[in-house]
Amino acid sequence: MNRSIRVLRVGQRYVRDDRTLTHLCLVSRALGAETIFLGDAEKDVVGTLDEVNRTWGGDFRAILGTPWRKVIKDSKAEGRSVVHLTMYGMPLQDKVAELRELEKLLLVVGGPKVPGKVYHEADYNIAVTSQPHSEIAALAITLHEIQSGEELKSAFGKSRLRILPSPRGKRVVEEK
Amino acid sequence: MNRSIRVLRVGQRYVRDDRTLTHLCLVSRALGAETIFLGDAEKDVVGTLDEVNRTWGGDFRAILGTPWRKVIKDSKAEGRSVVHLTMYGMPLQDKVAELRELEKLLLVVGGPKVPGKVYHEADYNIAVTSQPHSEIAALAITLHEIQSGEELKSAFGKSRLRILPSPRGKRVVEEK
Repeated sequence: MNRSIRVLRVGQRYVRDDRTLTHLCLVSRALGAETIFLGDAEKDVVGTLDEVNRTWGGDFRAILGTPWRKVIKDSKAEGRSVVHLTMYGMPLQDKVAELRELEKLLLVVGGPKVPGKVYHEADYNIAVTSQPHSEIAALAITLHEIQSGEELKSAFGKSRLRILPSPRGKRVVEEK
Repeated sequence: MNRSIRVLRVGQRYVRDDRTLTHLCLVSRALGAETIFLGDAEKDVVGTLDEVNRTWGGDFRAILGTPWRKVIKDSKAEGRSVVHLTMYGMPLQDKVAELRELEKLLLVVGGPKVPGKVYHEADYNIAVTSQPHSEIAALAITLHEIQSGEELKSAFGKSRLRILPSPRGKRVVEEK
């Protein structure tokens, strides 16, 4: 299946949390999503992602400033299933077979500040355990499960640097 | 198998990064580790974890201030395998069958500041993709894979609150 996965982050805290934002972006990129939608103008992260793409390959990108309601509405209009990750949702392991059948997905990640409306507009509310932990971890495990681990083997095309897996130490090839 | 998994965080940045630390602790707890070793005295996170245990169950705990060298040495002395997560290591998917056979594990997570010695003292250096992303995500997927997803079904025993999984909204039971 030629699956397309996008990620939407909602419910930013008032205190900017750049590290969590960067982790969410890099996890989305490394584990097979094509795009992340961010609610605010977070210019720094765009520069970080451009640099990561240049160095490590691929064309993952962040789209800034589209209101979350519009992202969800547009996604539905193009037949994309909206999967909201929340500790209050249905267990991932009970729904994963169904999620694997979906060709176009929008994964919505948030945190404590997610508006109630997101729960109702989502096609699925999915829990990676019903324990409090981390939207970064929930996103990672969901991406991993939906793609049955195939995402771990992805190539990222042309890049400046490439790692040669090693049992000890660091082996990096610089591409000419 | 009665598996025991502990987590060690090394290579803290000079700028304290409390959010990442909290995510690492909560992911360790939610996904089946019993303990996290932290290199510095991070008292705030202990309070957070006590509160999470009281509210959501279990007895996960952080152990503060043991130097990482001693944690690794003591772990090896009791027959625990040391598994360091790094983008430079061998692909998780190639090693996971072997890791699932281990009864006692110490998962070492770090970041850019991990001393070279950790690579050499680890029994395994394991990569969750060779792309840069997040030690939180790498820890989550590794815990998930080693336990074959069984950790998602864990019960946390006596707790003050308990979530009833729901397709929409939030359902929480308060235990008397």
